Amino acid sequence: MNNSTDVIIVGAGFAGLTAAKALLQAGKTVRILEARSRVGGRVHTEHFADFYLDMGGTWVGPSQDRVYAMLKEYQLVTFPTYDEGKSTLMMNGKRRNYKGLIPPLPIPALLSLDFAIKKINKLSKTVDLASPWNTPNAQHWDSMTLQTWMNQQMRFKTARKLFGIASEAIWAAHPNEVSMLHALFYTKSGRDFDTLMNVKNGAQEERILGGAQTLALKIADDLPENTILLNHRVDSIVQDEQGVEVIGKDFHYHASKVIVAIPPTLTHKIQFSPALPANRQQLVQRIPMGSVWKCYAVYEKPFWRAKELNGLAASDEGYVSVTFDNSPKDGSKGIMMGFVLANQAKAFSLLSEAQRKEVVLKQFTQFFGEEAQTPLFYVDKSWAEEEFSGGCYAGLMPTGAWTSLGKHLREPIKNIHWAGTETAEIWNGYIDGAIRSGERAADEILEKI
Amino acid sequence: MNNSTDVIIVGAGFAGLTAAKALLQAGKTVRILEARSRVGGRVHTEHFADFYLDMGGTWVGPSQDRVYAMLKEYQLVTFPTYDEGKSTLMMNGKRRNYKGLIPPLPIPALLSLDFAIKKINKLSKTVDLASPWNTPNAQHWDSMTLQTWMNQQMRFKTARKLFGIASEAIWAAHPNEVSMLHALFYTKSGRDFDTLMNVKNGAQEERILGGAQTLALKIADDLPENTILLNHRVDSIVQDEQGVEVIGKDFHYHASKVIVAIPPTLTHKIQFSPALPANRQQLVQRIPMGSVWKCYAVYEKPFWRAKELNGLAASDEGYVSVTFDNSPKDGSKGIMMGFVLANQAKAFSLLSEAQRKEVVLKQFTQFFGEEAQTPLFYVDKSWAEEEFSGGCYAGLMPTGAWTSLGKHLREPIKNIHWAGTETAEIWNGYIDGAIRSGERAADEILEKI
Repeated sequence: MNNSTDVIIVGAGFAGLTAAKALLQAGKTVRILEARSRVGGRVHTEHFADFYLDMGGTWVGPSQDRVYAMLKEYQLVTFPTYDEGKSTLMMNGKRRNYKGLIPPLPIPALLSLDFAIKKINKLSKTVDLASPWNTPNAQHWDSMTLQTWMNQQMRFKTARKLFGIASEAIWAAHPNEVSMLHALFYTKSGRDFDTLMNVKNGAQEERILGGAQTLALKIADDLPENTILLNHRVDSIVQDEQGVEVIGKDFHYHASKVIVAIPPTLTHKIQFSPALPANRQQLVQRIPMGSVWKCYAVYEKPFWRAKELNGLAASDEGYVSVTFDNSPKDGSKGIMMGFVLANQAKAFSLLSEAQRKEVVLKQFTQFFGEEAQTPLFYVDKSWAEEEFSGGCYAGLMPTGAWTSLGKHLREPIKNIHWAGTETAEIWNGYIDGAIRSGERAADEILEKI
Repeated sequence: MNNSTDVIIVGAGFAGLTAAKALLQAGKTVRILEARSRVGGRVHTEHFADFYLDMGGTWVGPSQDRVYAMLKEYQLVTFPTYDEGKSTLMMNGKRRNYKGLIPPLPIPALLSLDFAIKKINKLSKTVDLASPWNTPNAQHWDSMTLQTWMNQQMRFKTARKLFGIASEAIWAAHPNEVSMLHALFYTKSGRDFDTLMNVKNGAQEERILGGAQTLALKIADDLPENTILLNHRVDSIVQDEQGVEVIGKDFHYHASKVIVAIPPTLTHKIQFSPALPANRQQLVQRIPMGSVWKCYAVYEKPFWRAKELNGLAASDEGYVSVTFDNSPKDGSKGIMMGFVLANQAKAFSLLSEAQRKEVVLKQFTQFFGEEAQTPLFYVDKSWAEEEFSGGCYAGLMPTGAWTSLGKHLREPIKNIHWAGTETAEIWNGYIDGAIRSGERAADEILEKI
């Protein structure tokens, strides 16, 4: 293979892999340059002796049609996220268990919460997903934070707390970091707030047997040999009349077009020549990544199930805000996963590993009982520590960004095209959105070459 | 000079130059690495045949004690910004001229505006400048945008418009991009809202004879030969037990300590090894730069003065929001400067040079009369286009940033110290703040070595 291809793709996450697949199917030559020593981006499955852990993106759910189509194509199997039994709520210093979707809270708080969820769903329907800045009252919604809107809508503190926990679990950000216009966009992009929040009929409905990264590996294996070059960190992209030069420490490749399929904030780290237009640069200054730690404790058995607990917990105190039962399909181990989110994630980053383990197990014990105190194994992961992610789950729009600069998010710059889940209209922030963004970027290029 | 010094400073703006000066005075050896071919950073004076233009930072004013001390030390002269005669207000489709500080608006709107300004001043007094996250109700103020606060405080649209124009002129950002906590911090940092806004007794009170960059050049000239290496873009900083290695394309320098004196968002562009802590990386994802174009028209004479106009205009329509008379001290030319700010700056970036000139001169003509239509010369500058600034005037805190990550703004990371006006407690965002930040970073290092 010589040094020139039709297209170079920067990043072998789901967006980059999908774009490569689509371009190759259309007969184009493609090279993927990946900074890491693996494919999958923010989706990474770690394998241990007799279990595996999804350290990043994990679940799939209804209406995520593109990821399901890929799973089908590669004959991968999904299975339901465990949610039989009662959920756990730690709120205002008390633990309560409950069945179904309605937490055991005072009726006024429940009504307030229900009203707010219905309202955000209704408002989200007005969003123009292709160009959120054209949404009716876009300027109004983009001038306030999600937190401001929550304060206006919910007079009951308990309702605001629970809505806040759900929001942090959805965005991996404090509601004060997220523009209300972005919250509405994202809600519609992922169908509605209930879908984003829930296991059954929601974005957490199913898991992928073998781990979510398996799909990335399958797509990668299906590409012609040497398409993906790992450990190839791109330092600069030079455009000229002949196309693009993509340059790293020990390499220099040429192509007609390039797809940059990395989180927007990381495009800062690439030197572009000529420099990117001012508005593009200002935009990427305004798309910070969410903050999340995933904390895993592995037990002999999913002991909570015997207590008729589904392993789902939500807490208004401590570092861990929500938990999921991420045990193997056959229940041969008990695997509890806790999310440490937003401001708690930032504080958690200042603890030592021993401290982190201690505080997480203490909370798991509060939620599920004494057995949680002594796992076989504990491991956690901070995505903000990852140089080639900068945070998780995704880049977020603070107030003012969509309306002032949103139109530059996907707009190609001569021969540079942009992919990544942040550029998706549908399931923005999810694996499904990443796949859609890769396909869209490939289509843009196929219209031109 | 060998390859090792006590301290390396990245950036020869006012922060870097001041830090170097302080360290050298204390007997340390210093090298400054500057990516541009000039010193001064966001302060740059362009010289023409018989006039000069401050393309970046321009004014100095009361309580900016550190910049005045420097001006005195280098025997530089300041002179008052011209403001004799009437100001011009374009509002709701009408032009009005008025003397003094009170615009000719309906009394209810004026009262509303006055109330809001007094209130922001009063609230700002509660801010803890050294640690804004410790301000009473910090979480409350950091959860809303300045725009949300304006909407709550001012029921009259005209009052909100005028407050909005002032805010955009102060922050080079739309009020929906700025956290209310940051607005309060910045207001106190620059004394009060009136000081930030005004010419007389305000931040725009005086100009520097010869141009603002003259001071940077004087400080630079006063440093030992070869202290500053221009055209030295730093690509990576490696920390080890021996100190720091600072590396660029054709160079490699060693020091015990490094001061990074560039806008926070640009630190993304440097590769750090070991990688910076997650919280530091997340913080710099959350400090976008303001957006501003400076547009100059040069005339034979300051013709507006003959009409008893002071050249100060504010407009609620068009690209140019505010203007200043930036003529030479002796009035030998008429120099009108218009600011295009925030969202208007982003839209202005999409126009051609000919279009930009046309729309600016059209507005100058609306403000000051037909003579404005035919300048001797027109030039404009977008700071967002500048690779080594990323925008102007300064980095801004969106909602949530101060409270979640603010404490990492100045915190040294082993041998890496941080300077730049964004790290200043007093006159944050101004030349004076940059100087204070350089002195503070030098002090930090002198306590250690």
